[in-house]
Amino acid sequence: MSHSFNIVRAARAIINVTDLDASRDFYVNGLGFIETEADERHIYLRGLEERGHHSYVLQKSNEPGVEVISYKVSQENDLDELAAFFETKGMEPVWMEEGSQHAVGRALRVQDVSGIPVEFFYKMDKVERMLQHFDKYQGSKMQRIDHFNCMVPDVQKAYDFYTNELNYRCSEYTATNDDSVWAAWLYRKPTVHDVAFMNGKGPRLHHTGFWLSDPMCVINTCDVLGSLGYASNIERGPGRHGLSNAFFLYLRDPDGNRVELYTGDYFTGDPDFDPIRWDLDDPQRATFWGHEPPESWFNEAMQFLDVKTGEKMKVDEGTLSQRMPSFMN
Amino acid sequence: MSHSFNIVRAARAIINVTDLDASRDFYVNGLGFIETEADERHIYLRGLEERGHHSYVLQKSNEPGVEVISYKVSQENDLDELAAFFETKGMEPVWMEEGSQHAVGRALRVQDVSGIPVEFFYKMDKVERMLQHFDKYQGSKMQRIDHFNCMVPDVQKAYDFYTNELNYRCSEYTATNDDSVWAAWLYRKPTVHDVAFMNGKGPRLHHTGFWLSDPMCVINTCDVLGSLGYASNIERGPGRHGLSNAFFLYLRDPDGNRVELYTGDYFTGDPDFDPIRWDLDDPQRATFWGHEPPESWFNEAMQFLDVKTGEKMKVDEGTLSQRMPSFMN
Amino acid sequence: MSHSFNIVRAARAIINVTDLDASRDFYVNGLGFIETEADERHIYLRGLEERGHHSYVLQKSNEPGVEVISYKVSQENDLDELAAFFETKGMEPVWMEEGSQHAVGRALRVQDVSGIPVEFFYKMDKVERMLQHFDKYQGSKMQRIDHFNCMVPDVQKAYDFYTNELNYRCSEYTATNDDSVWAAWLYRKPTVHDVAFMNGKGPRLHHTGFWLSDPMCVINTCDVLGSLGYASNIERGPGRHGLSNAFFLYLRDPDGNRVELYTGDYFTGDPDFDPIRWDLDDPQRATFWGHEPPESWFNEAMQFLDVKTGEKMKVDEGTLSQRMPSFMN
Amino acid sequence: MSHSFNIVRAARAIINVTDLDASRDFYVNGLGFIETEADERHIYLRGLEERGHHSYVLQKSNEPGVEVISYKVSQENDLDELAAFFETKGMEPVWMEEGSQHAVGRALRVQDVSGIPVEFFYKMDKVERMLQHFDKYQGSKMQRIDHFNCMVPDVQKAYDFYTNELNYRCSEYTATNDDSVWAAWLYRKPTVHDVAFMNGKGPRLHHTGFWLSDPMCVINTCDVLGSLGYASNIERGPGRHGLSNAFFLYLRDPDGNRVELYTGDYFTGDPDFDPIRWDLDDPQRATFWGHEPPESWFNEAMQFLDVKTGEKMKVDEGTLSQRMPSFMN
Repeated sequence: MSHSFNIVRAARAIINVTDLDASRDFYVNGLGFIETEADERHIYLRGLEERGHHSYVLQKSNEPGVEVISYKVSQENDLDELAAFFETKGMEPVWMEEGSQHAVGRALRVQDVSGIPVEFFYKMDKVERMLQHFDKYQGSKMQRIDHFNCMVPDVQKAYDFYTNELNYRCSEYTATNDDSVWAAWLYRKPTVHDVAFMNGKGPRLHHTGFWLSDPMCVINTCDVLGSLGYASNIERGPGRHGLSNAFFLYLRDPDGNRVELYTGDYFTGDPDFDPIRWDLDDPQRATFWGHEPPESWFNEAMQFLDVKTGEKMKVDEGTLSQRMPSFMN
Repeated sequence: MSHSFNIVRAARAIINVTDLDASRDFYVNGLGFIETEADERHIYLRGLEERGHHSYVLQKSNEPGVEVISYKVSQENDLDELAAFFETKGMEPVWMEEGSQHAVGRALRVQDVSGIPVEFFYKMDKVERMLQHFDKYQGSKMQRIDHFNCMVPDVQKAYDFYTNELNYRCSEYTATNDDSVWAAWLYRKPTVHDVAFMNGKGPRLHHTGFWLSDPMCVINTCDVLGSLGYASNIERGPGRHGLSNAFFLYLRDPDGNRVELYTGDYFTGDPDFDPIRWDLDDPQRATFWGHEPPESWFNEAMQFLDVKTGEKMKVDEGTLSQRMPSFMN
Repeated sequence: MSHSFNIVRAARAIINVTDLDASRDFYVNGLGFIETEADERHIYLRGLEERGHHSYVLQKSNEPGVEVISYKVSQENDLDELAAFFETKGMEPVWMEEGSQHAVGRALRVQDVSGIPVEFFYKMDKVERMLQHFDKYQGSKMQRIDHFNCMVPDVQKAYDFYTNELNYRCSEYTATNDDSVWAAWLYRKPTVHDVAFMNGKGPRLHHTGFWLSDPMCVINTCDVLGSLGYASNIERGPGRHGLSNAFFLYLRDPDGNRVELYTGDYFTGDPDFDPIRWDLDDPQRATFWGHEPPESWFNEAMQFLDVKTGEKMKVDEGTLSQRMPSFMN
Repeated sequence: MSHSFNIVRAARAIINVTDLDASRDFYVNGLGFIETEADERHIYLRGLEERGHHSYVLQKSNEPGVEVISYKVSQENDLDELAAFFETKGMEPVWMEEGSQHAVGRALRVQDVSGIPVEFFYKMDKVERMLQHFDKYQGSKMQRIDHFNCMVPDVQKAYDFYTNELNYRCSEYTATNDDSVWAAWLYRKPTVHDVAFMNGKGPRLHHTGFWLSDPMCVINTCDVLGSLGYASNIERGPGRHGLSNAFFLYLRDPDGNRVELYTGDYFTGDPDFDPIRWDLDDPQRATFWGHEPPESWFNEAMQFLDVKTGEKMKVDEGTLSQRMPSFMN
């Protein structure tokens, strides 16, 4: 509340993949992500409007997993304030010194209250904006990173920490019949979210969300993926979420990592913006058109790695007894 | 082959519904069909570009069903030639004299080789084209009737009759592993089809297909139907068919009658056009993006009424042992 | 700089029109603005996603003109701080007490350094969001107010005041050959702009900009306006701006007041966002596709009314000798 | 009328260009035409759905010009019947024997009543359809050739010859105040046209029209051309024609040859289809949104070459005194 640090937005994710070339084909040729740079162990990707070096890092590993999800802060000094805050809370943040990560300045990592490995940084190398190189547009014509969606066992706890301590605001939320928060969409930049938490086995990363300019980009993505032999990587959609109003598509990359292509949300920056409540069993909450998501969408997610050990984190079941909307039973 | 009659195109369907007002709300407010006229027992609907009085008739009845599907011929005399041909074949065609049906001239009805009640007519009253009244566009912005899709027990028999006797041509077809024709798309106007036949319990009308101008009309339809409480009427899609290349949406009206909204096919009018073959088990045939259709889409269809008795026709199971693509098992 | 008030975004404009019914037809039936409420002298309009009472007020008057353009602040107390600041500057702000304006709380008005009548307020009545009433979408499907564009004689002066004193940031700007600022796009919310200043006879309001969800909404607007007899109200576009990357359409309402329909900009909220410089004579700056705007677009604009007298403000010519891009000569 | 030959559709144009590489960059990289094959003097292009070898031939020459525009007929024998017909008329047709033109069978050429060099052929080599290689789509995503538009001094004469002798039908036409035919849209395939004739200096080819699947392809074309430095090649549009209802874009290739990208027309195949009449001075005829075409669009066109001599044909002024719509004065 009274903390003076200022988190700007969801900024990047570092995702482990088992085959860099297979992943490149999917993200670059299939989805149209821009490849800024690559080395033997990484591919650095960005969207068409992004002037930062990358927003998505594919990292060669023996198995899939998520090293960290990162937020940009408003100035270098915010990192020190965040470090002090996490220390006070006994959360043992870890510094990544400048130079230890390619194209990024000093960064602070910490396991949040749900155990999610999060990172904060201010500086990133700048590169050319591709927004007006329309001749280079491909696939989804991905414009920028938008948000993270995490499954956690205790959504209320995550909600309290992010809204009370990190100054996130809530745009929309899903409540059970007894008014427990089943899921919450939280933001720093004035869109629907920078991060969402859903009740479920966790902590796990459900997906990284990327923003597209219009629904035809989603349709084009499906057609291109179908042409390239990636039809089975389309997990859910295209469809319209009731919650967030987004026109969406969920994809699984060659390692099963999930991304959401997303367009159509709205401005949430008014200080008197009232969060929108959805009943868990409202059939139009998940899909405004009434389609049921596949079970994999509810059950499968990406594992996080421990900030200190790099080991896969242990996950717990969701604490709410009502774990799935009734239309899934 | 040597018949001189000339069938122009799929022209109208007469569909029985149990509640005219409920149907009107779905088709007019939901889908944006233009209501030309109505009386106590009928609503006459057309698309935005259609200058004929109607292409879809909703008829009040005690239960759903299909009275007839109709084709337009190129001149009045074609009807006499068709009558003579059907007589020769012992198929006992029935004349509907001018005046017996609203807004339509003399018509000829017959049960085809699959038992489907089909009608042929030349004359229809002309009305205003709404194509450039963009301010009146709603929902799907339906432009014109496109085709019929029928389930029949013996596709080969239907294929032979329509191609050999009625001069239809084949644009695309689905074959089983032993090269039996499992489904065929047949046309008179140079698009993918005026009628398709699929192996299955029949004769039944699987759907009536309507042509839209672009994919955003399909997306808009879903959003509008969701807003109006018709989310559960969306049965399948939006998606891209491999076969026909159409961007599609399947809907069930309040009585369960199925319509397809359809856009994106191609020109088939070259005399040396070679039909395109699809394997029944090609996962991209049905949906280029790999989605599996719901079972209802395979199992449910509309019953036809007997031309002479008006009774529901008895249906037979499909003759091919391989009744569904393998991805449905 | 060190001011603690916080301006959130462009929030509403009050526009004088000579015929409320004629204006309603244009904005509501033609463009799909939502009419929240009306009385004998006003029509209050909003966009589909807006939960505030209105963002555009049509006010009956003897002649066209602009009473005020308004910004929302982040809390009630910001108004007092702004008042104190303007007093210090000798700018003589005027209070509009709560109740004096329909549906809006206490407001502060002042003539800015260019003489533009601007208003600040925090409170506005809340109404239903129409975003998911897709069945009610019409015309442009306008989603929210986005920005104002003003012609002023001295852009540098306006730029300095808004960036140094009111904490606006610059996303993009146009410079002449000798590096004078010919135009600047300034923002509070993290989009390309809340207000732009262009060199020219002023102060005048060039247009109010409204945000649409995608380019097809712009195309649909043209078609609907053509159908309704408003073809001659389309002044410029559709086209793509180089500067801002927006897909745009400029319209003149029945009184000649100009609005821009606008979609396709990008996120500007990073604190290290570097403004983008355009040469005044870059042909792709104004229109990425190379089309020349009509002369009316450069010469005509709306007159502001004096905050205290309500009289039309006197205007001065632009101070820069190079008044128009070379492609206009 | 009683002729038994059957012309199927507009099929290809052979266009002279001065620099094959420059033309390739424009058509292939800019517009997304598929390059089937090239030799030192030709580039053979086709659209995404086309299974014929080409529909547009770029031919190296010292200056721009049009060698011939071609129509496909329904069988080889139609060529003989056409030859006999032209001989009867004293029109001196010329045979191009099989093998004399790449990838095309025997062809018949003749100068039509307006002096336009037209060609008829049946056979063309078949190639792969690219329609479902969505990953290869670029620029305009051109799908197929649609029509030719020619300026001729005497539209009535051309109209009479094509409708009375070659069995074309008229979909729409423009008439002057005294009911002279100023322009006519004529078709064989059931779309708005395979060829249009407009009053003006001629015979000249005004443009070759290509069909796109939806309006977003037109918008994308503009963006891509802008990116590639071809902004000045966009001559007119995007816009909506009143006549034909097409959403259009007119482009000039590097030699000034004009092409139209075109989407949105309608079915004209009903035998009782009534042609639609437009007044020459109806401002919505040319552009439904009211925009005036540039003068170049009215004055400039491509020169035809004489079938026998290969020399540029001499052109005559239009015979109608009212040569331009009044909004052009």
